[in-house]
Amino acid sequence: MKMLLGITMGDPAGIGAEILLKAAATTASHRDYDIVAIADPFVLNEAKRVLASPIELVEVEVVDRAHIRELGRGRLAVYPSSRMKEEAIDYGQVHADYGKAAYQSITVAIDLALAGTIDAVVTPPINKEALSRAGVPFAGHTEIFAERTKSEEYAMMLSHGPLRVVHVSTHVSLLEACRLVTKDRVLATIRLAASAALALEGGSDKPIAVAGLNPHAGEHGLFGSEEELSIRPAIEEAMREGIDVIGPLPPDTIFSRAAGGEFSAVIAMYHDQGHIPLKLIGFTVDEKTGRFSEISGVNITLGLPIIRTSVDHGTAFDLAGTGAASENSLIEALQYAWRLAAVRYDKD
Amino acid sequence: MKMLLGITMGDPAGIGAEILLKAAATTASHRDYDIVAIADPFVLNEAKRVLASPIELVEVEVVDRAHIRELGRGRLAVYPSSRMKEEAIDYGQVHADYGKAAYQSITVAIDLALAGTIDAVVTPPINKEALSRAGVPFAGHTEIFAERTKSEEYAMMLSHGPLRVVHVSTHVSLLEACRLVTKDRVLATIRLAASAALALEGGSDKPIAVAGLNPHAGEHGLFGSEEELSIRPAIEEAMREGIDVIGPLPPDTIFSRAAGGEFSAVIAMYHDQGHIPLKLIGFTVDEKTGRFSEISGVNITLGLPIIRTSVDHGTAFDLAGTGAASENSLIEALQYAWRLAAVRYDKD
Repeated sequence: MKMLLGITMGDPAGIGAEILLKAAATTASHRDYDIVAIADPFVLNEAKRVLASPIELVEVEVVDRAHIRELGRGRLAVYPSSRMKEEAIDYGQVHADYGKAAYQSITVAIDLALAGTIDAVVTPPINKEALSRAGVPFAGHTEIFAERTKSEEYAMMLSHGPLRVVHVSTHVSLLEACRLVTKDRVLATIRLAASAALALEGGSDKPIAVAGLNPHAGEHGLFGSEEELSIRPAIEEAMREGIDVIGPLPPDTIFSRAAGGEFSAVIAMYHDQGHIPLKLIGFTVDEKTGRFSEISGVNITLGLPIIRTSVDHGTAFDLAGTGAASENSLIEALQYAWRLAAVRYDKD
Repeated sequence: MKMLLGITMGDPAGIGAEILLKAAATTASHRDYDIVAIADPFVLNEAKRVLASPIELVEVEVVDRAHIRELGRGRLAVYPSSRMKEEAIDYGQVHADYGKAAYQSITVAIDLALAGTIDAVVTPPINKEALSRAGVPFAGHTEIFAERTKSEEYAMMLSHGPLRVVHVSTHVSLLEACRLVTKDRVLATIRLAASAALALEGGSDKPIAVAGLNPHAGEHGLFGSEEELSIRPAIEEAMREGIDVIGPLPPDTIFSRAAGGEFSAVIAMYHDQGHIPLKLIGFTVDEKTGRFSEISGVNITLGLPIIRTSVDHGTAFDLAGTGAASENSLIEALQYAWRLAAVRYDKD
């Protein structure tokens, strides 16, 4: 069956709507999936103007698969999640109104996915401060999705080429992250990674690799005890459950090995342990301008009842309104969403 | 003046002696420097046999620059630092005797450098457990060099291409590393990095970039307070001293920017924050064999009265005795040692 993917718009002051339209230009009426933008129509129209894009925006009152499929190439279905005042967008600036509209786009999309009206949600970047000014009490997308879908065990997976990393914790201080390295959390994260690897590859012959928390994975207890007290017991339990998993491995070489294709996924013990290698591989900086010239990589929330993938970069406020932002990461996120949705559909 | 660089042998059961001979084959009687091996002659002879190397090993009783220079290409001066029993070497195994011989090679080399007999010490890898079995109470090279040269403020710098990283702490648990992020330590590390950048480049027009400790550099105090309490005050103090320094920057994008050539050095708050990106860039894994096929990168100890550079990889016990290990990192370490020695010589 052809899948229907919903794309949110991200923060109106960022690059979200621009990369949405750029991606839609190549992916609307894709062989494998159709897309529907769940967005404020005014924000998309402004992005269309910035890009001088020929794409035709077609507002729909209901999200109907057959109707959207018929639109074909060159047209993008837009399901309005809000109606902002039609005032010129203040690109690169933080506004409560923008945070509110970004949030509405997300919650409407989640509800459509929970109802089965769309098969997955794909998200461009939002601004945490704008959310906060709008009175939205969440640190980011992942937390909004977890709360609204009532998910308790979830984890962030970042993926770029052969490097796939699932995090035991994300947006907490490093001290707090050390405390969160418990047997239960590590085990839950290994299980989520194993399910994801299964869904993405239909069963991999490569093991999941678990990083240590400390330098050299603790060097046999010389630099910290979390490896012996929490990580190793979690690995042993996962092995008893039949999961192919190895570790704890030294954090400073596990990613070189992963980049070489040795593992189906890496379990990272904290945000930067996974984000540093991913962003080093996925982001390319132009030496002359000092700007990121190429961005790729996908963020996938594991453990939800719905499928959600995302770009792996921020709002790029300095590029917003120029049309220069790259849509590559969003196109990758669409591909991942489609693969995961297709696997889930085949299973049901 | 032509410099004289001393190379130690590393752990006899590792790849140290092999990469020493391979590097010497191309660098003995180098245009810019001469080299002398400070090693156990038997260990080098065994490596010569493993490699079927045509190089001629010439034992010297004193380290004499003129004599060593005259040896020319094809011959390597060896200053004996120990005389092990001439029994077949147990490659890949930990032995107290090996730890002891490796340690002697290092201490003899340090003393020669302190006396000005050689201009720098370059070190292949040692095994921490073998050192420990030999009763040597140090976690690694860096600590041995600091103790023997009576250095109190020192730091480990890793360098690979445009990426140069100096660490606020190294071989401690991550919890302890969080505690070591104090204003004084961060400031001392910035100063050492500034001196090194000056020595290596004769004054760079690029700033030193300081990483945060927490995700997103703490997101304005939302995920941890070390950025505001310790790191920012250290940066401000360094700026008052005239050092060109910026930060704290988000740890997950600072290395992508550094790899693009934006900074003269990055200050990393803990071992893996710096080691993960360096090893990801410097190590290449062969997809078919799963082994590291190419290793490069150099480790430099800053803050010593002598110059010390090192390979940036381990003993590779699985490759020892096969002749397959790459000498690239050691050759890079020699180049760095020469550049630093030449700058110091010009200054004196």
